[in-house]
Amino acid sequence: MWNSLVKHDSVDGVMRDKGLAKLGDSLVNLCYSLAKSLVLDSATGEKVRDRVLARAIRTTSVYQYIGHRTDAGVAGDAYEAIMAYLWLTGKATIEEMVTILRESLDIDTQTSRKAEVEVSSEAFHKLLEYYIDCLPEMNASRNKT
Amino acid sequence: MWNSLVKHDSVDGVMRDKGLAKLGDSLVNLCYSLAKSLVLDSATGEKVRDRVLARAIRTTSVYQYIGHRTDAGVAGDAYEAIMAYLWLTGKATIEEMVTILRESLDIDTQTSRKAEVEVSSEAFHKLLEYYIDCLPEMNASRNKT
Repeated sequence: MWNSLVKHDSVDGVMRDKGLAKLGDSLVNLCYSLAKSLVLDSATGEKVRDRVLARAIRTTSVYQYIGHRTDAGVAGDAYEAIMAYLWLTGKATIEEMVTILRESLDIDTQTSRKAEVEVSSEAFHKLLEYYIDCLPEMNASRNKT
Repeated sequence: MWNSLVKHDSVDGVMRDKGLAKLGDSLVNLCYSLAKSLVLDSATGEKVRDRVLARAIRTTSVYQYIGHRTDAGVAGDAYEAIMAYLWLTGKATIEEMVTILRESLDIDTQTSRKAEVEVSSEAFHKLLEYYIDCLPEMNASRNKT
């Protein structure tokens, strides 16, 4: 439905797309806010920090495409761009993403910020692993170099 | 599907719910980001300012329920809470909200920030008017006072 906004057909192109990262930022915040609300049974909102998403992506196979010395901002943007790609192309729905996040979000109203960072990083890691086979191939020309 | 997060059955209760406002914040940002992306044919992200939503709600019939002297923050929160209510109860979908916003979003890459505030306020006004009959009644006990 919104495929026209995806201008890349390679995973590395997607991960470096700043526009997709911006759109993915509000997508990731909404999915996490809803998952957390459902776990706590109380509506709330949350801005997911770059370092949470950076931790989530660093232990996946796609991390190699953005280089091993990137800062949390770049790694977080890459994560957000991937989620925007998956959603815009219909490979993921908000309902499904929220369900997956929720399953591993073992928190309650007493959970500290620090513990929530740990738990949410792991939840976002599982979310990305779930969809990793839905991502396009690496750019062939880059592959050759 | 997510009805359990709505703890109010009156429009004034919804509009004052801080949790719904937090969840609605990321919902409104995502819908606007996607609508703007589609209009510009380029993925982007945007945080919708309180004053945009405040302008959008001030000329609607529900504004009376939060008082006529509220600041932009309170009015914006009320707008966001309403959108969260509509979405959580299945009365509105993201696809539909984006379609409605997009129709009145007459902007391009040259549009100034100031002009975008005007245009987006009007788009959010139309969005709320579209759903206004889907909102619950005012709290009966308040009505009597």
